[in-house]
Amino acid sequence: MSHVRVHNFAISLDGYGSGEPQSREEPFGHAGERLHEWMFTTRFWNEMHDDPGGSEGADNALAIRHGQGIGAEIMGSNKFGPPGWQDDPDWKGWWGPNPPFHTPTFVLTHRPREPIEMEGGTTFHFLDASPAEAVEQAKAAAGDLDVRIGGGATVIRDAIAAGLVDHVHLVQVPIVLGRGSNVWEGLEALEDGYDIEATSTSSGVTHLTFTRRR
Amino acid sequence: MSHVRVHNFAISLDGYGSGEPQSREEPFGHAGERLHEWMFTTRFWNEMHDDPGGSEGADNALAIRHGQGIGAEIMGSNKFGPPGWQDDPDWKGWWGPNPPFHTPTFVLTHRPREPIEMEGGTTFHFLDASPAEAVEQAKAAAGDLDVRIGGGATVIRDAIAAGLVDHVHLVQVPIVLGRGSNVWEGLEALEDGYDIEATSTSSGVTHLTFTRRR
Repeated sequence: MSHVRVHNFAISLDGYGSGEPQSREEPFGHAGERLHEWMFTTRFWNEMHDDPGGSEGADNALAIRHGQGIGAEIMGSNKFGPPGWQDDPDWKGWWGPNPPFHTPTFVLTHRPREPIEMEGGTTFHFLDASPAEAVEQAKAAAGDLDVRIGGGATVIRDAIAAGLVDHVHLVQVPIVLGRGSNVWEGLEALEDGYDIEATSTSSGVTHLTFTRRR
Repeated sequence: MSHVRVHNFAISLDGYGSGEPQSREEPFGHAGERLHEWMFTTRFWNEMHDDPGGSEGADNALAIRHGQGIGAEIMGSNKFGPPGWQDDPDWKGWWGPNPPFHTPTFVLTHRPREPIEMEGGTTFHFLDASPAEAVEQAKAAAGDLDVRIGGGATVIRDAIAAGLVDHVHLVQVPIVLGRGSNVWEGLEALEDGYDIEATSTSSGVTHLTFTRRR
């Protein structure tokens, strides 16, 4: 049975998954790279960038779950590009010719376009669909493998609120952003449906994992 | 040099220090006792209630800091009583004849009344004052000892935003309240002024400690 999972989604202490305003120059707005620095020291990150070494503790063990057993990703419009990317027919995402997804990747947008086949197994499909419809299509594409909800905060919280998500991994970073897109909105009483674990690590972050009760 | 400290202030994952609506029957609204259960198993809590035993790990070590070296407390109106307590001339707080403060305790309210002397060293003083004015009076009362800001969320965040607080200890509990009084409001970039540590414990909570940079 294929699962729907969220991995490595970093938030501030006050729950923001990105800052504002988001732009081509500043994809995460006033958050900059600060939500993701915990990952830059892991072996997971280094291997993606053909660098040697990196930490192999709990941060890394949780980070590498990102790709394990995943057969498709769903992402929101704001993850795929800066505001207005829909007006640029040549925009192919932030990630260069070989994006780090390596599976069919479904981009939610009200202005769908033709699929884009990239190197390394990533094909971007553009869907004007609800989270539930997107999950159905992504599961069909993933076969026996799982589906990852890649973010941003809006897509993640909408998918959780719709009861679509089996496992969530958030990484709480010790900064207070104050504004942006908040992952907790609309998720009152989330603990009723999930077992929640909190694990702080020596890098200063706290991993929050949510496992759906059966 | 006397410090201003916050201890044992519990919040939900989304930053709420209490639920709503608050009432005489439900002091923490829909949060109930869930924000404080982590404390009920500690030796700190048991000793306060003349019960034997209790845990003596990190939860307890952090919890007992609450009273160490404290010479006065400041609390908000909503901590002292339910909405409307100002209309009850006999209201003396939630805590019975011997409240757990044992020092001068300053209650911020727009409707001050005469001081109330309780058993065990607690005297409630009622102040219509800004956080800065309250801290000044509390420091005078505390002598060489420190001042504790006792909550709720509004008083804590106002005192932090006003630059009055040297040390903050929050306890993040794995529930999502969705509504209530949020401790993070107005604290953007808090990390610029404080060293922040996160420590998760086997009880499932994460202790967040903020130490002002000198």
